Amino acid sequence: MRRASPELLKEVLREAERLAVPTEEEQERLNTVMTSVLDAVRSVFSALDGFVDASVEGSAAKRTWVKSRPEVDVFVRFSPLVSREKLEEIVVRYGIQALESAGASWRLRYADHPYVEGVLSGVAVNVVGCYDVQKGGWISAVDRTPYHTRYVASRLDDRLRREIRLAKAFAIGTGVYGAEIKIGGFSGYLMELLVLRFGGFIDLLEDVSRWRAPKVIELTGELGEGKALTLFPRSSLVVTDPVDPMRNVASAVTLTKLSEFVLASKLFFTFPSIRFFSPPNPSATYANRDVLAILFDRPQGLPVDTLWGEALRFVRSVSSRLSREGFEVRRWAVEGVEDSVLALIELDSHELPANELRVGPPVWMESAFDFLEKHSSDVLTVAGPWVSGERLYVLKRREVRSAVELTKRWLRDQSVSIPKDLEAPLKRADVLRLDGESLMRFRSMGFERFLDNFLDGRPPYLRGP
Amino acid sequence: MRRASPELLKEVLREAERLAVPTEEEQERLNTVMTSVLDAVRSVFSALDGFVDASVEGSAAKRTWVKSRPEVDVFVRFSPLVSREKLEEIVVRYGIQALESAGASWRLRYADHPYVEGVLSGVAVNVVGCYDVQKGGWISAVDRTPYHTRYVASRLDDRLRREIRLAKAFAIGTGVYGAEIKIGGFSGYLMELLVLRFGGFIDLLEDVSRWRAPKVIELTGELGEGKALTLFPRSSLVVTDPVDPMRNVASAVTLTKLSEFVLASKLFFTFPSIRFFSPPNPSATYANRDVLAILFDRPQGLPVDTLWGEALRFVRSVSSRLSREGFEVRRWAVEGVEDSVLALIELDSHELPANELRVGPPVWMESAFDFLEKHSSDVLTVAGPWVSGERLYVLKRREVRSAVELTKRWLRDQSVSIPKDLEAPLKRADVLRLDGESLMRFRSMGFERFLDNFLDGRPPYLRGP
Repeated sequence: MRRASPELLKEVLREAERLAVPTEEEQERLNTVMTSVLDAVRSVFSALDGFVDASVEGSAAKRTWVKSRPEVDVFVRFSPLVSREKLEEIVVRYGIQALESAGASWRLRYADHPYVEGVLSGVAVNVVGCYDVQKGGWISAVDRTPYHTRYVASRLDDRLRREIRLAKAFAIGTGVYGAEIKIGGFSGYLMELLVLRFGGFIDLLEDVSRWRAPKVIELTGELGEGKALTLFPRSSLVVTDPVDPMRNVASAVTLTKLSEFVLASKLFFTFPSIRFFSPPNPSATYANRDVLAILFDRPQGLPVDTLWGEALRFVRSVSSRLSREGFEVRRWAVEGVEDSVLALIELDSHELPANELRVGPPVWMESAFDFLEKHSSDVLTVAGPWVSGERLYVLKRREVRSAVELTKRWLRDQSVSIPKDLEAPLKRADVLRLDGESLMRFRSMGFERFLDNFLDGRPPYLRGP
Repeated sequence: MRRASPELLKEVLREAERLAVPTEEEQERLNTVMTSVLDAVRSVFSALDGFVDASVEGSAAKRTWVKSRPEVDVFVRFSPLVSREKLEEIVVRYGIQALESAGASWRLRYADHPYVEGVLSGVAVNVVGCYDVQKGGWISAVDRTPYHTRYVASRLDDRLRREIRLAKAFAIGTGVYGAEIKIGGFSGYLMELLVLRFGGFIDLLEDVSRWRAPKVIELTGELGEGKALTLFPRSSLVVTDPVDPMRNVASAVTLTKLSEFVLASKLFFTFPSIRFFSPPNPSATYANRDVLAILFDRPQGLPVDTLWGEALRFVRSVSSRLSREGFEVRRWAVEGVEDSVLALIELDSHELPANELRVGPPVWMESAFDFLEKHSSDVLTVAGPWVSGERLYVLKRREVRSAVELTKRWLRDQSVSIPKDLEAPLKRADVLRLDGESLMRFRSMGFERFLDNFLDGRPPYLRGP
């Protein structure tokens, strides 16, 4: 592997630091927000039955957030005696009250369970409920978070905070940051653990540039790599959780995102550049492209990972149906903007050839006669049936050749997988071929960045000047 | 399997007999030709060194030819002391003289070795040279023929002659007759052996309708079926030669022709019809078809099996090159008429999609960088490179999309297999897409039957009314 000069690398890192490390002023602002929201939460929740305490967790508590992305997570801990339904109800009701009393805007969100999200002085604020449990006695999915915060925070110093911020900024800039199903990348906690493990950003990148899936990083000291691998056999990356040895912190990381991280790391050492932290704009062309677009309404009140799980499953199903029909599916992607979801599937062509070859049974099978009877005098038969090898074949005229028409038909007769929550929106879906007009319409709806990224196709750090 | 009534079957067989069994008059004519050619050959060859005797062999000697297809093969037998070169020279020189003195027209042909072919009173006549050897002491490929004639003739009676003629007429009518490479079907001798083995035409067909490749019929009584199969492992049909246990009489039969025979036999019992002996004309359409045509001169002075071996190899090579390039090859065929050879290849489309997906190496390979360098800033890159799974991909604009243009290019740069004898003719080949104009031109050249058969695609017995 060719390597750029150490001077160039240092220069790029200095520049990256200016992008990744928050200013004093941003830090001050976060402190103020943290204090006022925590105070408001404590005063609203403290009188409630089962309330134990509230605390700031996550990147604000650890001071590891990336510049311009401050976020305060306030965790309200309850006694395990409170039921899950009760906890959810209380968090929503009093979380809203607390944010209002602190002067923040708010809206309801759904993840594993509902939480309240708000903004105060330009800082994102979340109020999340969890159970106050001993290590290992997890009840809800977020009960580990306070332990994660303490594990990381107790191992940090100012240098490591800077290294973590550089690593997160690199992951954001290269498009591999985020453990949501829609992204399938690296969570903040995962990036922190990796920097701690390798001692710094550049040391982490050095190691990553040599990774190959499946990759195991055993942090608990209790399992060993082999054991960890057998525990998580379908993971591309296994990073065991020091707080819970039975959990893979990297379970969300897809093979694609892992590979993108590996490639970006290798490229960074050969061509160090600030573009890995601050990506250039995509340059898109849609001439000579055959892109099928499906636009539908975003169902409301659904946890985001449920929505994207279902949306990805749907688009995957349409893609594989198109493949089976004879189209070549090059790539696909799906994105949501406000109340709309747009799926794009790039094909080799928007229509299939006029005729299609049907493969029949071997002549020695009983069903050979049925094949002959079905096709010999059919009006759609163009040539044959004929024998080649020991099988029958026939060439048939296709009734429907267009990807758009076929997809509309499959949506009507449900011959593609239509997840429950998407049933109603997909009934009214807009299926069309991407052209100048629809491109303009989608851009005006807020999909411009998604469209440009899709049509360009390159990961951000590979984009031209 | 449904079966038609025995009455209908009998009626069809009566009608078929009228098509298959020669008239008294045709028999007389053949006798006259036989006598005069044999006399002429004897008188011309008898004075020559090494001449042993001349005799009539094949279907004329056995009286098993099919009506309207009389053919007289005169074999001139020489002592093994005569060299092959000498024998070939003598047969050509004096064969011509003999045919001329009998009043026949003639022309030179090449098979395993040269022979002289003529026509006298509407009867085809061949003068072939062979060695007078003991069983098993074969020198040339045709030395077995006199033994074949004697083996069959000694087992025939008038009923069996009629059965053989029906069987041959069925094979001719269904398109499976002929052991030449170009056809890959059943020879006359093979049909005779099969009728002898099963005792009659209908009994043969009954058995064939239940065949499945690889099928073994052991006639020598020396090998057993298992041994015969291991001796000829690549044959679809093995019929051991009673005259030579180490020879498979059916070695020319392809899996396709065997399967066609099986299918025709099954169909005959369900829908008995004279069409199995006298096939209806094909009905062809070329609308919405994408057929690539390659027309070239037939090289002269080549044994037919050499020519068709090379021609088939060439067309197969173009077909698989087209497949690799992204076309779907549905079927292909090749035919010669006079001095021209025409190859037809039916495709899904005459042009490929505008863009093509290129699959790159996994990101962890050294060559990943080369792939990125090659494609990242290439003018033909439409989208990407991107990462999916652990591999790189890129979408490229195609420079040449047309099957015709690509094939012309491959002929120029020899990136398809071009057999030695076709090199010169293919340099001047005409490569084009079949359309109304070229169709008319090819028809006027004598390819009408070939074109109609190809475009129809059905075996003759499956053609509509």
